[in-house]
Amino acid sequence: MAGANAYARMTLVNLLARHLGVELAQLTSRSFAGQPYRAVFPLLELDGTFGMEPAATEADVVFSCLPHNVGAANAGRWLQAGVRLIDMSADFRLKDPALYPRWYRQDHPAPELLQQAVLGLPELHAGELVDARLVAVPGCHSTAAILGLAPAVAAGLVGGDVVVDSKTGVSGAGRSPSLGVHFSEVSEAVHAYSIGGHRHAPEVMQELGALANGALPRITLVTHLVPMIRGILVTCYFDLVGSLDELHDAYVEFYSGHPFTKVLDSTPTSKLTSYSNLCLVNVAAQGSKAVVTAAIDNLVKGASGQGVECFNIAFGFSRTEGLEGPLQWP
Amino acid sequence: MAGANAYARMTLVNLLARHLGVELAQLTSRSFAGQPYRAVFPLLELDGTFGMEPAATEADVVFSCLPHNVGAANAGRWLQAGVRLIDMSADFRLKDPALYPRWYRQDHPAPELLQQAVLGLPELHAGELVDARLVAVPGCHSTAAILGLAPAVAAGLVGGDVVVDSKTGVSGAGRSPSLGVHFSEVSEAVHAYSIGGHRHAPEVMQELGALANGALPRITLVTHLVPMIRGILVTCYFDLVGSLDELHDAYVEFYSGHPFTKVLDSTPTSKLTSYSNLCLVNVAAQGSKAVVTAAIDNLVKGASGQGVECFNIAFGFSRTEGLEGPLQWP
Amino acid sequence: MAGANAYARMTLVNLLARHLGVELAQLTSRSFAGQPYRAVFPLLELDGTFGMEPAATEADVVFSCLPHNVGAANAGRWLQAGVRLIDMSADFRLKDPALYPRWYRQDHPAPELLQQAVLGLPELHAGELVDARLVAVPGCHSTAAILGLAPAVAAGLVGGDVVVDSKTGVSGAGRSPSLGVHFSEVSEAVHAYSIGGHRHAPEVMQELGALANGALPRITLVTHLVPMIRGILVTCYFDLVGSLDELHDAYVEFYSGHPFTKVLDSTPTSKLTSYSNLCLVNVAAQGSKAVVTAAIDNLVKGASGQGVECFNIAFGFSRTEGLEGPLQWP
Amino acid sequence: MAGANAYARMTLVNLLARHLGVELAQLTSRSFAGQPYRAVFPLLELDGTFGMEPAATEADVVFSCLPHNVGAANAGRWLQAGVRLIDMSADFRLKDPALYPRWYRQDHPAPELLQQAVLGLPELHAGELVDARLVAVPGCHSTAAILGLAPAVAAGLVGGDVVVDSKTGVSGAGRSPSLGVHFSEVSEAVHAYSIGGHRHAPEVMQELGALANGALPRITLVTHLVPMIRGILVTCYFDLVGSLDELHDAYVEFYSGHPFTKVLDSTPTSKLTSYSNLCLVNVAAQGSKAVVTAAIDNLVKGASGQGVECFNIAFGFSRTEGLEGPLQWP
Repeated sequence: MAGANAYARMTLVNLLARHLGVELAQLTSRSFAGQPYRAVFPLLELDGTFGMEPAATEADVVFSCLPHNVGAANAGRWLQAGVRLIDMSADFRLKDPALYPRWYRQDHPAPELLQQAVLGLPELHAGELVDARLVAVPGCHSTAAILGLAPAVAAGLVGGDVVVDSKTGVSGAGRSPSLGVHFSEVSEAVHAYSIGGHRHAPEVMQELGALANGALPRITLVTHLVPMIRGILVTCYFDLVGSLDELHDAYVEFYSGHPFTKVLDSTPTSKLTSYSNLCLVNVAAQGSKAVVTAAIDNLVKGASGQGVECFNIAFGFSRTEGLEGPLQWP
Repeated sequence: MAGANAYARMTLVNLLARHLGVELAQLTSRSFAGQPYRAVFPLLELDGTFGMEPAATEADVVFSCLPHNVGAANAGRWLQAGVRLIDMSADFRLKDPALYPRWYRQDHPAPELLQQAVLGLPELHAGELVDARLVAVPGCHSTAAILGLAPAVAAGLVGGDVVVDSKTGVSGAGRSPSLGVHFSEVSEAVHAYSIGGHRHAPEVMQELGALANGALPRITLVTHLVPMIRGILVTCYFDLVGSLDELHDAYVEFYSGHPFTKVLDSTPTSKLTSYSNLCLVNVAAQGSKAVVTAAIDNLVKGASGQGVECFNIAFGFSRTEGLEGPLQWP
Repeated sequence: MAGANAYARMTLVNLLARHLGVELAQLTSRSFAGQPYRAVFPLLELDGTFGMEPAATEADVVFSCLPHNVGAANAGRWLQAGVRLIDMSADFRLKDPALYPRWYRQDHPAPELLQQAVLGLPELHAGELVDARLVAVPGCHSTAAILGLAPAVAAGLVGGDVVVDSKTGVSGAGRSPSLGVHFSEVSEAVHAYSIGGHRHAPEVMQELGALANGALPRITLVTHLVPMIRGILVTCYFDLVGSLDELHDAYVEFYSGHPFTKVLDSTPTSKLTSYSNLCLVNVAAQGSKAVVTAAIDNLVKGASGQGVECFNIAFGFSRTEGLEGPLQWP
Repeated sequence: MAGANAYARMTLVNLLARHLGVELAQLTSRSFAGQPYRAVFPLLELDGTFGMEPAATEADVVFSCLPHNVGAANAGRWLQAGVRLIDMSADFRLKDPALYPRWYRQDHPAPELLQQAVLGLPELHAGELVDARLVAVPGCHSTAAILGLAPAVAAGLVGGDVVVDSKTGVSGAGRSPSLGVHFSEVSEAVHAYSIGGHRHAPEVMQELGALANGALPRITLVTHLVPMIRGILVTCYFDLVGSLDELHDAYVEFYSGHPFTKVLDSTPTSKLTSYSNLCLVNVAAQGSKAVVTAAIDNLVKGASGQGVECFNIAFGFSRTEGLEGPLQWP
């Protein structure tokens, strides 16, 4: 494994290492190639040495954390070899190949695979995930925003347009050093970024558009960096169609039977989800404006935990296997 | 001085102590009465002893940080004695006495004074502040929200309704201990509060309503607690009427000549305003939705610094007296 | 359960809830009496209602988190009823009853029980913990300091006196609100406290004295508060007797076979132990001065995790039962 | 100006910009050469453009923040041109040229200048600083450790050896991005570094050795990184010679007349010095071990503020010019 967000990758290795149904066949990393796993994960009891490139011949499944496009270029080969793929990158999240040049500045290297990819959001796609061969785990802001809005959109309870104000911790920016993640710059500070448009926005529109049957309201998504390591809180604003009770009931019903997404009676702090695969949602209003807040841990439900959840569904494990454990607080 | 937010009060004493035109006649505090100033402000070279109640007979001006209603009950007496009043509380911010029972659960103790009070927001009321005898310094969220929206509202460039998503540091909650400001609860966490309606909302509506000439759009204001000590960032969303350039120009023109509010070309981090009286504003858009961000230090421009700024105007000092100093970074 | 550090108590409930060999018979709390468990632990699937006082008749073991002296007053009754006791308080940590008036300002309520109590530090007392009926889990600073020094003291490799400089996160101060845990006071700050002498010091001296066979060097322990939630790092300084290699080998040998205390080749960050029962130790020197650093999570190995570890030994479970799980990072 | 710690450099420009006796002739920076000052310091009203190399012909004084050795190579030329030099680097701090290869891995480029350099620590060298032509401002850990120990050493009140445990905020590591200053690594963590020996140690030994008249006790200095932006707290341990009162009096007398170093009755939090040039010292004991704590802001008294203080003395300004201002809290 390599690429994008090294924190999500580290979290994934930790989750898989305790998963009773998983045997880690091979970890790969260009930067760590040749080093023993224990040099990188000193506290996991893992034997083996990092490989250079994912061979994937003897494995049943590849969890790919490769950078955008790199994994996509390999995906066809893996699938043909009978290996299933849980892709943590953005490569297969968007169905419409025309969106890639616009948001990722490159044509998609394997557009023919886009239609068979299943978006790895179990609350929306649990059925398709069973026996899925190519799973595209959505982004962290997308996961929070979609889970914060899906029941309202599906029930036709959204009037006017939608504003999603997302606040994320710093680990979402990955582990590569830069001024933007420097402690002395980021601590004691909050700021907006990607105001013109965040790459996770088209994922939100695709998914909510499908639920809206073509009547998707306009969505504005602005992301903010908050001085904490983990966590995302999205605050979603839209005009209330019908009563607040009706809205609340739509959420309870939508998430009924889903083990990780819970509708709370009070607005969640992001911290209540830290180190867990939970998504906590609250439905409220200010006058005629619905205000829905949703919180996740960006590295777990917003990345690796959700990847494992999808894997569990795809391979017939209990959906919570490897993902249980007490809430860590504070 | 006593009451509400002890951090704002401490900041005020520090600002006044270095103000060349100010001689501190008397500090009062029920909790510190009888103690020397130096016991509470060990690093200021202040001689004197805290009094119990503000006598205000030998002073030209009272800076009142008393709790809501307590100061209002004294205000008439002070004004009759020829003492001018800079009130840091919410007591005289709202013109309409009917709003007090609704937002503060009490009738106003001196409604006859409401009309002569000038809201202490120099960017809107500099003219009235000259020779003002009763100044009501607005709240921290209000200051940020009003400064983030006033030029757009005044220029008629706001289409549809407005969402204001405000993120504040913990010092805004004051210095009294509670679980809500406990380090282990607040650190590594973000959450929304007062979703149903924040007390600063009517201040925002009153001020923007006046600028809108009765055509005020609906405003939704939701406040969030962010794990940092100082700073507020508001993100304001509204449908763009006209072009982004037009909107930007309206902001530049509106704040031209105002020393502390600056229109930046990029979105500000709250930290750039820390320990200063600055308000930094950026005007941007996502598609047809205008996204204006505004940052202040909640204890300075959001409280004490603005109080001193109003005092400077009211007493004919340079508007920046006592408020200059280099930017503190990081 | 009630008392002292509510964060340690919350952590304990979480650990026991996932322990395969534990059935929670009754939680008690004066403040929560009558409330369902789920109101306090919304994310644990626990059925039941908080009791007022620990009855302890139908249980095999009581985990007591009662305040100092309150638990001790009940202990005799519980033990006579055949219930074993894991006490998280300081009540049974010191063998010498004369120390209680000095450090806790009260005579001990049940001095006759002191000799049968086993100090709950498995690295030193694993043998006695088997079948122990009364276990006194040591303090968080004590655990880190003892584990940082025990091998050197036992091997006679300490020359001159010892300085232990301990740095702790804020959760060690418990959950009760006070100015000392207020975010705006504690954030961006470090300070020493209890310079004259910390209550955990006599625990350290008792345990190291026993290992030193009466030749215990003088120990100075100063504690510091660091702006983080979890974690303790102790830096231990003493004159090196023999070589650094010899010292290092003494540590490796001493902790051989102990699953949670590991000797690292580089100095640990406290964070590497967060949310785990690990104690990570590094042995180094600056010239002729040995510098040993030891890190723990103050709420886990420094409190509840160690309590569960002792329980596992006392009741014949695997020592790591309920305490495994991947390292959470960051 | 360029080099080492960009935060110290930024702080210096801010301090000089408000200094009434200073006209900034030229700022230089290889990375910013050709850019206007306002691009880098948007909130200072500075006109001009960064130069490439310090010409220093038209200036009375150069504040050099160049990397180690780079400034030293220029120093002779500047001094010959009649320009005085306040050097923020380590180049001229050590009198003994033999120490440079050991601690900085290079021979000193201008050893003939070492004897005329005055260490820029006014509490020890105020007399020599008057008319000094070459001032070497000491390191941040050195400043805190020397100020924490000097009175005891000078009065012969130190028995046995000395342990200095120093805790610093992250800004001391400078502004260059690296994993070691990454928010997600550094937040919620404390660790020791440079256990084998920190470069500031020889500065401490040189200065205290001079005060000790050759009877300098052995000193062990270990530095720790604490999750805060600003501040250093050193905890100094040594055996008490004489009484605690005697020790306390020695400190009060030593710092009498020095405006920035104050002896407090209680142990200081580092934060009380933030954004100021203060050094706050407390003298206490645990049994027969003296425990002296000293706190500074690493970027002000530990770097730029002290440089300005030295400049004030050298050029006959009031020692506090440009350095006053209210305490910023929280």
